Amino acid sequence: MAPATLTPQKSLLDVLPPGKRARLHRLLFEYGPGQGTLLFLPIDQGIEHGPRDFFPNPDSKDPEYQFRLAVEANYTAIACQIGFATKYWPDYAGRTGLILKINGKTDIPSGAQSFSTLNASVEDAVRLGADAVGYTLYVGSPRQDQDLLQMKTVREDCDRYGMPLVVWAYPRGEALDEKGGQSTFYAIDYAARMAMEMGADIVKLNMPKIDPEKDKLTPEPYNELDVTQEEAIRQCVESAGRALVVLSGGSRIDDDELLGQTRMIMEAGGSGVIYGRNVWQRDLDSAKEIVEQISSTLTTSILRTP
Amino acid sequence: MAPATLTPQKSLLDVLPPGKRARLHRLLFEYGPGQGTLLFLPIDQGIEHGPRDFFPNPDSKDPEYQFRLAVEANYTAIACQIGFATKYWPDYAGRTGLILKINGKTDIPSGAQSFSTLNASVEDAVRLGADAVGYTLYVGSPRQDQDLLQMKTVREDCDRYGMPLVVWAYPRGEALDEKGGQSTFYAIDYAARMAMEMGADIVKLNMPKIDPEKDKLTPEPYNELDVTQEEAIRQCVESAGRALVVLSGGSRIDDDELLGQTRMIMEAGGSGVIYGRNVWQRDLDSAKEIVEQISSTLTTSILRTP
Amino acid sequence: MAPATLTPQKSLLDVLPPGKRARLHRLLFEYGPGQGTLLFLPIDQGIEHGPRDFFPNPDSKDPEYQFRLAVEANYTAIACQIGFATKYWPDYAGRTGLILKINGKTDIPSGAQSFSTLNASVEDAVRLGADAVGYTLYVGSPRQDQDLLQMKTVREDCDRYGMPLVVWAYPRGEALDEKGGQSTFYAIDYAARMAMEMGADIVKLNMPKIDPEKDKLTPEPYNELDVTQEEAIRQCVESAGRALVVLSGGSRIDDDELLGQTRMIMEAGGSGVIYGRNVWQRDLDSAKEIVEQISSTLTTSILRTP
Amino acid sequence: MAPATLTPQKSLLDVLPPGKRARLHRLLFEYGPGQGTLLFLPIDQGIEHGPRDFFPNPDSKDPEYQFRLAVEANYTAIACQIGFATKYWPDYAGRTGLILKINGKTDIPSGAQSFSTLNASVEDAVRLGADAVGYTLYVGSPRQDQDLLQMKTVREDCDRYGMPLVVWAYPRGEALDEKGGQSTFYAIDYAARMAMEMGADIVKLNMPKIDPEKDKLTPEPYNELDVTQEEAIRQCVESAGRALVVLSGGSRIDDDELLGQTRMIMEAGGSGVIYGRNVWQRDLDSAKEIVEQISSTLTTSILRTP
Amino acid sequence: MAPATLTPQKSLLDVLPPGKRARLHRLLFEYGPGQGTLLFLPIDQGIEHGPRDFFPNPDSKDPEYQFRLAVEANYTAIACQIGFATKYWPDYAGRTGLILKINGKTDIPSGAQSFSTLNASVEDAVRLGADAVGYTLYVGSPRQDQDLLQMKTVREDCDRYGMPLVVWAYPRGEALDEKGGQSTFYAIDYAARMAMEMGADIVKLNMPKIDPEKDKLTPEPYNELDVTQEEAIRQCVESAGRALVVLSGGSRIDDDELLGQTRMIMEAGGSGVIYGRNVWQRDLDSAKEIVEQISSTLTTSILRTP
Repeated sequence: MAPATLTPQKSLLDVLPPGKRARLHRLLFEYGPGQGTLLFLPIDQGIEHGPRDFFPNPDSKDPEYQFRLAVEANYTAIACQIGFATKYWPDYAGRTGLILKINGKTDIPSGAQSFSTLNASVEDAVRLGADAVGYTLYVGSPRQDQDLLQMKTVREDCDRYGMPLVVWAYPRGEALDEKGGQSTFYAIDYAARMAMEMGADIVKLNMPKIDPEKDKLTPEPYNELDVTQEEAIRQCVESAGRALVVLSGGSRIDDDELLGQTRMIMEAGGSGVIYGRNVWQRDLDSAKEIVEQISSTLTTSILRTP
Repeated sequence: MAPATLTPQKSLLDVLPPGKRARLHRLLFEYGPGQGTLLFLPIDQGIEHGPRDFFPNPDSKDPEYQFRLAVEANYTAIACQIGFATKYWPDYAGRTGLILKINGKTDIPSGAQSFSTLNASVEDAVRLGADAVGYTLYVGSPRQDQDLLQMKTVREDCDRYGMPLVVWAYPRGEALDEKGGQSTFYAIDYAARMAMEMGADIVKLNMPKIDPEKDKLTPEPYNELDVTQEEAIRQCVESAGRALVVLSGGSRIDDDELLGQTRMIMEAGGSGVIYGRNVWQRDLDSAKEIVEQISSTLTTSILRTP
Repeated sequence: MAPATLTPQKSLLDVLPPGKRARLHRLLFEYGPGQGTLLFLPIDQGIEHGPRDFFPNPDSKDPEYQFRLAVEANYTAIACQIGFATKYWPDYAGRTGLILKINGKTDIPSGAQSFSTLNASVEDAVRLGADAVGYTLYVGSPRQDQDLLQMKTVREDCDRYGMPLVVWAYPRGEALDEKGGQSTFYAIDYAARMAMEMGADIVKLNMPKIDPEKDKLTPEPYNELDVTQEEAIRQCVESAGRALVVLSGGSRIDDDELLGQTRMIMEAGGSGVIYGRNVWQRDLDSAKEIVEQISSTLTTSILRTP
Repeated sequence: MAPATLTPQKSLLDVLPPGKRARLHRLLFEYGPGQGTLLFLPIDQGIEHGPRDFFPNPDSKDPEYQFRLAVEANYTAIACQIGFATKYWPDYAGRTGLILKINGKTDIPSGAQSFSTLNASVEDAVRLGADAVGYTLYVGSPRQDQDLLQMKTVREDCDRYGMPLVVWAYPRGEALDEKGGQSTFYAIDYAARMAMEMGADIVKLNMPKIDPEKDKLTPEPYNELDVTQEEAIRQCVESAGRALVVLSGGSRIDDDELLGQTRMIMEAGGSGVIYGRNVWQRDLDSAKEIVEQISSTLTTSILRTP
Repeated sequence: MAPATLTPQKSLLDVLPPGKRARLHRLLFEYGPGQGTLLFLPIDQGIEHGPRDFFPNPDSKDPEYQFRLAVEANYTAIACQIGFATKYWPDYAGRTGLILKINGKTDIPSGAQSFSTLNASVEDAVRLGADAVGYTLYVGSPRQDQDLLQMKTVREDCDRYGMPLVVWAYPRGEALDEKGGQSTFYAIDYAARMAMEMGADIVKLNMPKIDPEKDKLTPEPYNELDVTQEEAIRQCVESAGRALVVLSGGSRIDDDELLGQTRMIMEAGGSGVIYGRNVWQRDLDSAKEIVEQISSTLTTSILRTP
């Protein structure tokens, strides 16, 4: 299948109500690299994985590190849990954006029945002066019934307060295992669509992996497609319609790969990236250096205006 | 069993309270083909099946496509989820009808324990200016207890706001497998009745399939009946009493079959059809053409006045 | 064990608060055969069994049929679900009594874990001008915890609005299977007591069946009793204390048996009967005829004054 | 282990807020044998066991019997469910005490996962003029999580309305089976403590049974103790701290044993007894006679002043 | 890995809102040994283990014992359940601090699915004049979804009322068994982090145990670390960021070990200890003596100022 041109979409900002528009405009154009791009710093690995991700750079265990990094390296926003936001954000409020991540869980039990309950609320985000709310939706989990119902309450509160909703759309759960797992184009594409139809303003996706063995297990026509990773990303972006898409980096990879991937994401219609371990598993100076390169890649590869 | 005449029913509009009557009158007589018929365009396949249904016509992945189609081909209404309604409906508001579908789920986990939780509310529908609310009820699912309780809250809100309630009445769940499955006359007939008794104004059914092997497994007297598909539809329409019935097309079929089926539905007392993939898996011009034929079939085969 | 005289009970009406008293007085003395008797027409088989019960008399599929029957044959009240009450009752309001049945379920999944969630509310009953509310309690089900908690809310609302509470007290659930099943004197007696202690004003019971094989499996002293069906009914009536008891007919039986059973119920202290299929599986004229005979049997066999 | 002296406890009445104090004072000193003793008549066997307990004395099936007994034999209070209280208590209100038992269940399903949901509320108790509320807590059940959360709401309402809280503290559930079962000193002692720490004002316990075979299975140091039943009771009373303790009789035992047990309970620091079947499984005159003996035993064996 | 210097953290008091600050200041500087240290007396073993912990010192069964001990030995605060606080705290109110522990459970069922529901509320704590609220979070339990959601409501109420939140952060649940169990550095470190990110002001941890066999089963890099217990504690303290950390003693150990451990905790950055059985399993005089030594150790080993 040959890569097609991206379907032009009406600007997201044009269709959003004023509260969401104001906050999202700030993220897209005021904080961070700007020009309609998004560069998020996620620091919720401490609950999702435990402190083990901090060992490569012991400084990173101190939440101060990430807040300082977000401000000094000029990230668009930092995404963190309520405990961080309550005890560290006050000193940085207004100097960078804040995405309050309002659900999460440890990875100690298996992911077969994935579901993250709320540990904070949209009202907490409003009170703290956050610019957006983050919610993890496990697409395809056997517990999707609880997840969708919970997300409804979040989406409604976001509508009520004019708070942009960033959905971490993760294919997950035991039923996916027989359909190629959580990283196929099929799975990521479904997740992108689901998040948009459920009301996301920004969809956070993991990179789709092209793996013929796994793709064979996906439903038609995905099991017969022969697409590049870039094409897969482009289609996922399209599945999200007017919602903006940011992609994550996952565990640490090579710098060139990281920058190449960043460019590919933007050229496939993505609106930005959310890079955590790839950045803060370095000392502050190296971290700031790589963020500068990422920022410059973002603003020089813009395909889509939000 | 010989097909009987349809039992005359008092007009549904006459028994509805004013809010429901106003909105339903609009759907039956103002939007779409009119004359008391209903022609709905469903676009929730992106969450129910994932984006895979869009591959035959890549344009169809963009929600704009369906909204444009609904308006230009003169559908009665478009039925979609909250994300669509929030981000695309504003540009089309007032130019076609809107049925806000307020529950749904992915098809990744098995359907053995089917239950779709709410992802939006009747209040959302009111706020968006929708003409009706759509709810999927899985009749016979082991989780019917949760489903019926949830539907109670929806039905009550519909009563409160005068919002017509369209019930997607789907026989489903592991217990049905030993009773012939979800497509028998028995199963569809039960679903039609259930939806009406639970308070549906319009019941959306799948076509009952006559299959002697499966019918043998259904309870008495269904296992001994020898009815045509049309007779089965007529009986399902009767089971729904004063509630109106629309039938769906499912995956794509031949045009002649589609139009023949449309006529049969109307002559069996149906009030219209809900055709998605059979229409939007074509390019816009062909889609508009077939809709014109469907509309004309609807209005020339009316048996029942609502 | 020799049949004993019925313990005299204080009149139920005397202990009820005014709202309940007014409504129940209407049912006992104004509608139907009167003189303190109750003759209820149940039409919830469409959801509890599906439309299959309507085949013996196709006219019975149309809800109009039962409403007309209730009025023309002079039933005390019709008992139905919210969909019926909303779309058909308006035309008959005030001409017969209405019991709004507010929970129910399909019989597609097995009854091992029986529990019927609410699909309507006591407030719906008030709004519709109903004379009583009907609730199915599955006595002994593994899910009794949810059932009793739910019934609490119904009982409280009945207290709040002065609405009589009719409890369909059905022994049910997998744990009963090893104790003789749902039709033994033990099971029905327990159900009668449970309903009264939980706050029922009227208890609807199925006929206890005397079956030595099954009775052997019941707990002491039921496994050693040697009682007639009439004596069993009398004891069940006593277990319900001041609550009134009506018994149901179940699937269709012979007319003489039906009338004999009716007399036996009254002579054992019952306050009336609830006959559906035994009546409406006939054409309207025959139905009215048999109801006349039942009514006359009721009023000529009164033992207990309510 | 040698029996120790009972640790002196501050009077419970002195630490209770005025509403609880007023009501409890009434039970301890005004109704029943008085002098700080408690004599409760429980009549919830009809739901906990079914009507089978009434066969030894058929009169006992009529709730009138127990109310009359409570008044004529001068019990401190009758403990019953909402249905009883609503339909029979009005005639006896003010002439004896009332403990409204607000949860309960049938014994048809197994007790492996014991949990009794609420069927009435503290507000019901207030409205009916009850003197206390009764709640069954299944200590150690796998569903303790639900039980404790539910009891929280009851305790809070009791605090709000100044209503004394009587906790039926029953060790129960499949996990206990491997630890000696529900009647060991270990199990009863744990239950006594749990009830007090959760906020009980009065704790209702079953008699601990000394059984070396079962005691061996209990945790240290219970598996090595060698205590008499009286010493076990005394320790359970101590575990309940300032909360008062009443012990129950269970199924019917010999009169001498009953009176001896009563004396032992009082001498071990108990505040009274709750005797049902041992009393009402007799005719009214014999019942009154034995109650007189029990009362006299209570008031002549007082060790602890409340 | 060589022990590193503790990362300096901004004072917790400086970032807390006024209500939390006032109450926490009282605990750190007014009650108990002061100078920014915390010495808590836990007395919830009666529900968590049953009365078995009281046998070594029978006096300890009487709640008076612990309250008297807390006041006379000059503890910072006593931590107990609602029943204790309601019936014993009034006599001691204002003379020591109170941490109302608002969830808990028996240890009768297995801990595979650990989850402690609420038995009291933050409002109870406010009403009783408590200085903080205690909550047990089972980190890694298969029921973490319910736990986190419940803790959200507690955290929100603490924010609303300015009540400090002390989290008993316990790694627990069947999924941990394959990862080295609940006492590894990995498990305790994860728990410390989780509690802080979820909003704890003070984190209560069990001592991490260094056990190469179990550590081998933990995830990378924990399975390869070679740290001392003190270094492990220091890292756990760092994982808790600005939240203060207190460590518990568990079952009784030798006095020298107890004091040595106390010093180690303080030198690793801990803010104090929570010692129950190690103290109250002695007679009052010995208990007061050891508390004096503990207090002196605390105040002479302070590393971190809160």
